[in-house]
Amino acid sequence: MPGPLTLGEIASRLGGRVAGDERTLIRQVGSLEHAGAGEIAFLTSAKHRAKLAATQAAAVILSAETEKLTARPRIVCDDPYAYYARVSQIFNPRTLQEPGVHPSAVVAPGVRLGERVSIGAGCVVGEGASIGDDSCLYPRVVVYPGCSIGARCIVQAGAVIGADGFGNARHEGRWIKIPQIGSVRIGDDVEIGANTTIDRGHLGDTVIEEGARLDNQIQVGHNTRIGAHTAIAGCVGIAGSADIGRNCTFGGAAMVLGHLKIVDEVHVGAGTMISRSILKPGSYTGFFPFDDSKAWARNAVHLRHLDDLTDRIRTLEKKKPKAKRGKKHG
Amino acid sequence: MPGPLTLGEIASRLGGRVAGDERTLIRQVGSLEHAGAGEIAFLTSAKHRAKLAATQAAAVILSAETEKLTARPRIVCDDPYAYYARVSQIFNPRTLQEPGVHPSAVVAPGVRLGERVSIGAGCVVGEGASIGDDSCLYPRVVVYPGCSIGARCIVQAGAVIGADGFGNARHEGRWIKIPQIGSVRIGDDVEIGANTTIDRGHLGDTVIEEGARLDNQIQVGHNTRIGAHTAIAGCVGIAGSADIGRNCTFGGAAMVLGHLKIVDEVHVGAGTMISRSILKPGSYTGFFPFDDSKAWARNAVHLRHLDDLTDRIRTLEKKKPKAKRGKKHG
Amino acid sequence: MPGPLTLGEIASRLGGRVAGDERTLIRQVGSLEHAGAGEIAFLTSAKHRAKLAATQAAAVILSAETEKLTARPRIVCDDPYAYYARVSQIFNPRTLQEPGVHPSAVVAPGVRLGERVSIGAGCVVGEGASIGDDSCLYPRVVVYPGCSIGARCIVQAGAVIGADGFGNARHEGRWIKIPQIGSVRIGDDVEIGANTTIDRGHLGDTVIEEGARLDNQIQVGHNTRIGAHTAIAGCVGIAGSADIGRNCTFGGAAMVLGHLKIVDEVHVGAGTMISRSILKPGSYTGFFPFDDSKAWARNAVHLRHLDDLTDRIRTLEKKKPKAKRGKKHG
Repeated sequence: MPGPLTLGEIASRLGGRVAGDERTLIRQVGSLEHAGAGEIAFLTSAKHRAKLAATQAAAVILSAETEKLTARPRIVCDDPYAYYARVSQIFNPRTLQEPGVHPSAVVAPGVRLGERVSIGAGCVVGEGASIGDDSCLYPRVVVYPGCSIGARCIVQAGAVIGADGFGNARHEGRWIKIPQIGSVRIGDDVEIGANTTIDRGHLGDTVIEEGARLDNQIQVGHNTRIGAHTAIAGCVGIAGSADIGRNCTFGGAAMVLGHLKIVDEVHVGAGTMISRSILKPGSYTGFFPFDDSKAWARNAVHLRHLDDLTDRIRTLEKKKPKAKRGKKHG
Repeated sequence: MPGPLTLGEIASRLGGRVAGDERTLIRQVGSLEHAGAGEIAFLTSAKHRAKLAATQAAAVILSAETEKLTARPRIVCDDPYAYYARVSQIFNPRTLQEPGVHPSAVVAPGVRLGERVSIGAGCVVGEGASIGDDSCLYPRVVVYPGCSIGARCIVQAGAVIGADGFGNARHEGRWIKIPQIGSVRIGDDVEIGANTTIDRGHLGDTVIEEGARLDNQIQVGHNTRIGAHTAIAGCVGIAGSADIGRNCTFGGAAMVLGHLKIVDEVHVGAGTMISRSILKPGSYTGFFPFDDSKAWARNAVHLRHLDDLTDRIRTLEKKKPKAKRGKKHG
Repeated sequence: MPGPLTLGEIASRLGGRVAGDERTLIRQVGSLEHAGAGEIAFLTSAKHRAKLAATQAAAVILSAETEKLTARPRIVCDDPYAYYARVSQIFNPRTLQEPGVHPSAVVAPGVRLGERVSIGAGCVVGEGASIGDDSCLYPRVVVYPGCSIGARCIVQAGAVIGADGFGNARHEGRWIKIPQIGSVRIGDDVEIGANTTIDRGHLGDTVIEEGARLDNQIQVGHNTRIGAHTAIAGCVGIAGSADIGRNCTFGGAAMVLGHLKIVDEVHVGAGTMISRSILKPGSYTGFFPFDDSKAWARNAVHLRHLDDLTDRIRTLEKKKPKAKRGKKHG
């Protein structure tokens, strides 16, 4: 754990303006509710002003709009949450696992390991794979032969990179396995969550571009591309050959069918099934709103008759010559 | 495997009343359909009376309401299913894995291990972690540094406890990783399923309270609390900072968004997306009922016009001065 | 990697008719877009004729209907995709992992291993388990005690076969664990994806019949049966005691509730919740079609009033004696 820094020292490293005592000593980050002596908290919105008023934090990171809400020592900056992230990185450099290859890891001969790589206990890295500088594989990660991981990547425990894609041809009532001869290429600064699986390509590679963030329990099918700086929450499934753009976000348990294209800057809500390509940036959602179970059942039964219902409305409209079809938004 | 017991011996240990021959010898549990000599089955409802009539079981566990349905030796009790569970535990004490630390497991120095703990092959337990008395980690479980697991817990193979939560701040088109400096605290008598992942807290801990049951392939985000004796079926995803009460149940593949509160005694159906807090005990559901694919497509297309459809109905109602709006339930 | 073959040699092994130069040498398979010298591509539909026209592949596998679309050397056959799969198997026999038991694997005494079995690094195979001839377990697979895997099976990394099923009896506010004393039986020629979990039976076994294909991140509950040659895409969850027929297919993230029966030849769409038994072969779907988020919210709000809406339509119909109820399809 690094030693304490004064507010002034933090601001000289990361920018921002100090208000209050520059010599306030900071040892760690904390939340407004729980931070105490030596800890710095952050405020992202004025709606948390009550927490701010009650905080015991030694200092607070906030924006120019909110800085007057407290008299505590503080750092004023444009983006308090990002600033907080950088402060936390100073006090919490990755320490869960030291660099080096754990003796219980199985690294095939010929694997290219960058500088300061950390390979945790029980990891298995196959022939011809490569791991870039400063990357960390937590315990029990499997990297299949031939897959490459860039620099400064973090792969959480249990992730499987490069298993065979799901390729089978149906013939006379049986499945013939189609060899998956591509691999997986992961760019720099990517994080992969625990027990997430990324399949190797069928022909050509599965590609995760730089800066992407994948949470836990995600499935990425073969030959999919995930664009740079796209973030995907837990339990998402992405079928094969999807082409997903840059700077997208996916809520938890969203699904993307195979062979679709999703352009840059698309935001998909949690639990949403993407069944067609999305060619326009924007925000997309589609899940069934929950209700108390009886009300849900009472309403959901009509879904099987929606087409009929629509016909009945049409019929009613036709029967009344004077009725004009209702219009909304115009 | 323990030796056989008579019905009388079972009842003297677990309570209940024996009807028929007390000396009937029991060696194992079984189902009404397949149990044979030396095996005891159970009946939870009179609707299985046909199976009861045909059973070859040496004895049956049932309730006072159903005891007259058979002349076989039997144990009469209030809750036959729970009674059966206890009988099965007598004949099937956990034997899949012996106590002790398997030589292939990697347990960091300083880990506190309780009495009679069983750590399976290939497990990895990080620095500062602790595992309570009589707990069992099946093979290839990872417990990250600093996480604690209570007494009498069972963690199935491949589970990952304490990987980093999914915390990233967006800044100038890139994600800055937010260190996850909390940990995971799991109470006593908890079971965690195979390949389930429970993330460590961002600030503060992720907490699974005593007696909770988590099935396989579940994702629990950082700083979530799961209340005591809550049971969660497979493939459920729970986003970060959810606060879930006691005695809840979640059907398979349900999802809970982040920062929600769910009170005690809430029952969420399978495949249901919980997108708002639930402050009232009860049963909640929300999934799209399946249909044959063509019928589904024909009906689902109208969902994108429901708002328009509602407007059209309103228009029709207005055009007819005598038409009163239909009311249900009153 | 096997040596090159001429088109004539391929056809003499696998059938089909060569058009163009029989002596064309083939070393590998490729896609129409990227295949070059020594590579054979395939065409499954005339709609890809533009790619065919532009291909640099040394040869193409296609059908009699499309063979005139190119002058390149080609193999004409009934099922180009299946033929391609077989050609790829010739040039890409499984080479990611050699036969034999990796020294880091933990195989209990008394496990029956067939001929030429491959057990990858970090695998754990419990007492009394058996693995059939020519089967391959990639790294970090766990096979619990007593489970059996047939011949020619492939189990991808991180899969867990035979963890305890999710069996708990509720009694006085607590869960009593029900011992899971069955096991898992997997037939011949089955493939199991990465990090997939298949639970052992409660009483009796969980069964995966021959030729089934399971993708990654799938959960199969206890006592479920999956019929022969059924294929299940990633992230699917199948609850306990489901009885699923032969030759079925399941799209990604589909769910099947417990104790249901699904007959042979049923095809379930992605993201579909199967909440009742399916007793008729066919294709079934049920997910909420996504929309842009605002439109979705505007429409979805009416789902909670569908029952009321239907009542209102009924009321309108009654008020107008001349209006006949609209009928569709007859």
